[in-house]
Amino acid sequence: MSGRLVIVGLGPGADDLRCPRASAALAAATDLVGYGPYLARVPVRTGQCRHGSDNREEADRARFAIELAATGRAVAVVSAGDAGVFGMAAAVFEVIEQGDPRWRALDVVVHPGVSAVLAAAARLGAPFGNDFCVLSLSDNLKPWGLVLERLEAAARVGLALALYNPLSKARPWQLGEALERLRAVLPGAVPVAFARAISRPDEQVAITTLAEARTEQADMRTLVVVGTAETRVIARPGREPWIYTPRSVGRRPA
Amino acid sequence: MSGRLVIVGLGPGADDLRCPRASAALAAATDLVGYGPYLARVPVRTGQCRHGSDNREEADRARFAIELAATGRAVAVVSAGDAGVFGMAAAVFEVIEQGDPRWRALDVVVHPGVSAVLAAAARLGAPFGNDFCVLSLSDNLKPWGLVLERLEAAARVGLALALYNPLSKARPWQLGEALERLRAVLPGAVPVAFARAISRPDEQVAITTLAEARTEQADMRTLVVVGTAETRVIARPGREPWIYTPRSVGRRPA
Repeated sequence: MSGRLVIVGLGPGADDLRCPRASAALAAATDLVGYGPYLARVPVRTGQCRHGSDNREEADRARFAIELAATGRAVAVVSAGDAGVFGMAAAVFEVIEQGDPRWRALDVVVHPGVSAVLAAAARLGAPFGNDFCVLSLSDNLKPWGLVLERLEAAARVGLALALYNPLSKARPWQLGEALERLRAVLPGAVPVAFARAISRPDEQVAITTLAEARTEQADMRTLVVVGTAETRVIARPGREPWIYTPRSVGRRPA
Repeated sequence: MSGRLVIVGLGPGADDLRCPRASAALAAATDLVGYGPYLARVPVRTGQCRHGSDNREEADRARFAIELAATGRAVAVVSAGDAGVFGMAAAVFEVIEQGDPRWRALDVVVHPGVSAVLAAAARLGAPFGNDFCVLSLSDNLKPWGLVLERLEAAARVGLALALYNPLSKARPWQLGEALERLRAVLPGAVPVAFARAISRPDEQVAITTLAEARTEQADMRTLVVVGTAETRVIARPGREPWIYTPRSVGRRPA
C-alpha cells in the first residue's frame, strides 16, 4: 500500500504555537480529515480536499481517513493540541489494529503539537513543575468509578492534576463530584485554575482554590488545573498571580 | 521595573518542532541564558549576548537571568522540550518568590514547547492515548521513597507512565529499582519503550516489555515509557511496531 497518513497536532489555537513540521505536513496533504472547527484553523489550499465531521465520531473519522490513505492519497488527520493526548492518534491505531491487515503497511506518522496542558501551564506559570498527571473526566469510555479512583490515587501521592473534558451538556455533574472527591483528600487551600481556550481570542483564566472552585467556572473547552499541597501562588500587585509547583518536595525550595 | 523575562521551551530537538512563538521570542531577546548544549540549538544573532552554564545550577541560572532582566534587559531563558516540564520555569518562579519583591513587577512570560513526553509518544504511536502520569525518577529534589510511592500508585490505577531522568552517573540504580517496583504491580507483558534524543540526529528507540526491560537500555537523555495492562503493540512485518493505549478502559475498543 502506498498511501500516507499523518496525524497532526494543531497546537492550542494560536498559529504561532503550531510547529513548522505540523504546518508543512498539512500543506503537503491531498486530503484533510477532522472535526470541523479544527479544520477551520488550517489555511485553505487550492486543490486540497477537506473532510469535516462531527466531534463525536472519532472511530468513524479514523476509519474514513485510513481507507482514503489506502487508496493512495496523502491524508492528514487533525487534532487540537497534541494528537496523542485525548486526540485522534489512539483512535487511528485502534482502527488499524482491528481492521484490514494490509493497513499495517501504510506509512503512518504522528506529528506532535503543544497540548492544552502545556499551553495552560505556561499561561499560569509552572503548575506542573513537579510530577503530574493528565486525566480525562469523561466517563464515555471508562467507568466513572475508575475516574474517581485515579483522581484520588494521584492526589494522595502529591501529583498535580490536569483535567481534560471536565464537563459537557451530556455530563454536567462529573466535575462537581470530582472536586468533592479531591476535597476529601487535599487541603482546601490547594490552588485550582480554570484555563479556557488558551491562546485563542476567547481565552479565559480563573484562579481560585480547591475549597472555592465551582463547576460553573468550567465548560467543555476548559482545562482544569489542580495543584498540590506544595503548589505556590505568587501574588502580584494589580496583576494576575503566578502559580507554580516547586521542583523540590518536602522542603522549602532553595 | 521595565525588564522582560521570557522562559522558552526549545522543543525536543529538531528545528521544525520548535514553535514560531518560541523562535520569535529568542530572536527578540538581548540576552540568552541556559545550559550550554541547549543554547547551542539557538541560531546565533549578532549583538545578542549568550550566557551558558552548567546544567546542575538551575537556581543560580534563574537568579542570574532575573537580575539581568531587572536591569532592563530582554532576557530569554531556554529549556529543552517544554520549560514547564522539569525545565527552567519552576526554577525561575521559585527564585522570584523568595527574592526581591520588586521582581514581581517584571514582565515574565512562559512560551510552551513540545515536551519530550509528547515527542516520544508521537514517535511510538499513541502510548498516552488514555490517562497518564509524568514523573521524574531523580531523587535529587524529593525522597526516593516518594518516587516509588508515586510510581506504584499510578501503576495500580492503570495510568501510563512517562519517566524523566531515569538515571545518570550519580544515580545509576534508581531505574532498576523503579522497574522492580513496577513489576510487582503490573503484568510482565506491559509494553515499555526507551525513547532517547527523539528528533535529534542521535535518536534511538527500543521497544520491549516490563519483564525484559533493563537499566542498560537508558541513559540520561532517555525518556522511559511504561504502558498499562491495556496498552497494545501492533506488529508490522519488517518494521518497528506501533504502541498505543486505547481510549476505552475495560473493554475492547469499538
